[in-house]
Amino acid sequence: MLSKNQIKIITSLSQKKYRKQHQLFIAEGKKVIEELLPNFDLEWLFCVGDLNFKNVDKNKVYQVTDTEIKKISVLTTATNCLAVFRIPEERENKELKGLIVALDDIRDPGNLGTIIRLCDWFGIETLLCSEETVDVYNPKVVQATMGSISRVNVVYGNIVEILKTTSLPVFGTFMDGENIYKKELPKEGIIVMGNEANGISVEIEKIAKNKISIPRFGKLQATESLNVATATAIILSEFRRN
Amino acid sequence: MLSKNQIKIITSLSQKKYRKQHQLFIAEGKKVIEELLPNFDLEWLFCVGDLNFKNVDKNKVYQVTDTEIKKISVLTTATNCLAVFRIPEERENKELKGLIVALDDIRDPGNLGTIIRLCDWFGIETLLCSEETVDVYNPKVVQATMGSISRVNVVYGNIVEILKTTSLPVFGTFMDGENIYKKELPKEGIIVMGNEANGISVEIEKIAKNKISIPRFGKLQATESLNVATATAIILSEFRRN
Repeated sequence: MLSKNQIKIITSLSQKKYRKQHQLFIAEGKKVIEELLPNFDLEWLFCVGDLNFKNVDKNKVYQVTDTEIKKISVLTTATNCLAVFRIPEERENKELKGLIVALDDIRDPGNLGTIIRLCDWFGIETLLCSEETVDVYNPKVVQATMGSISRVNVVYGNIVEILKTTSLPVFGTFMDGENIYKKELPKEGIIVMGNEANGISVEIEKIAKNKISIPRFGKLQATESLNVATATAIILSEFRRN
Repeated sequence: MLSKNQIKIITSLSQKKYRKQHQLFIAEGKKVIEELLPNFDLEWLFCVGDLNFKNVDKNKVYQVTDTEIKKISVLTTATNCLAVFRIPEERENKELKGLIVALDDIRDPGNLGTIIRLCDWFGIETLLCSEETVDVYNPKVVQATMGSISRVNVVYGNIVEILKTTSLPVFGTFMDGENIYKKELPKEGIIVMGNEANGISVEIEKIAKNKISIPRFGKLQATESLNVATATAIILSEFRRN
């Protein structure tokens, strides 16, 4: 049974300002929820039927009907469970080391979610996001990460300042960059990925001294660009394959 | 000005059966439409204001209002133009050669669109799709291809039969496959990518003699799988980089 107040709070969580106000976010589907349970504090868990979640405080579980879950789901096709988790305090910004990805204003939630999943796969522990990058607790981002959100430290901040002061080499993808297949790539560094429409901003272009590019093999008229998430996949694969 | 009949036809084109009946599909936004104009027969072009399209028969251009374009758009945020194109007859299934991608029941329109864009980038001329794969003229697929749909030959058919009779080596991605970074990859072959939830079907697993895998670098608990479009990106990059 869902209370009116719960419905009001949950539906408000599609918007960043209410997520910030309540310090809550939602996740849907058993697989995603199970991956988040060990790493985030559960507030409420709504289930249609007994779904056999392990290690969950029963006082936080609410049985609901199909009709009720549809009311609070943000998915086109609601699944049979929805969880509300507490947004954790930002982890301290530890010293930057190893391989790091920085996002310069990624706007599409699906792209951010896919990039977080890629970071998890390729063992990237820290993902730096510019303040204009879509919020990691946006429900569409959470769903697209498929649970990887619990294993990648996503830090928002002024990435221009961070890149200016780091001692790590900074890499950016540009049309006229060096062929990534031929360049020797280090084990440590910060890889900047640019905005979907405008690429890397002028300010960051000045800092990203290591300009790389993914060669195109198609016909002359072929597509001018790759989707930012697929470009990230190719670049991370190249850095890690050595 | 939009006629009632046009609205009725255009809104019906979100559904495959009506696309088949009318042999029409839609595309939105100037960039995508311009990429399709040289390769597909235009039926109607609806514009808010004068958008300066080149080489377009003026009799096919209709001036519409913002309110009208919102009625026919399938995008969350309508742009200022929408085109209706004729679906071409399937190109003859020429002899299979070079590098080819085959999709075993890809259901998500965004994934198919992104894979078509990747094929365009990496010079893959033919994309084989199982009959259960999402329709390439689905409006969400068309938008995600960003115009690449006009440069990749997408062929639907019984891929099990095609794979059984081809003389090309068949590659499939499996958890226990050979490390793709260490395997010598040929210039010719068919790379099969599996369904989002179930991977490659049992029938095709028997035919895909060359089992490959993308190594994972994350922690032990890291994500079990990559999104199919990002996995395709990494695999195509590996095949082409040599």
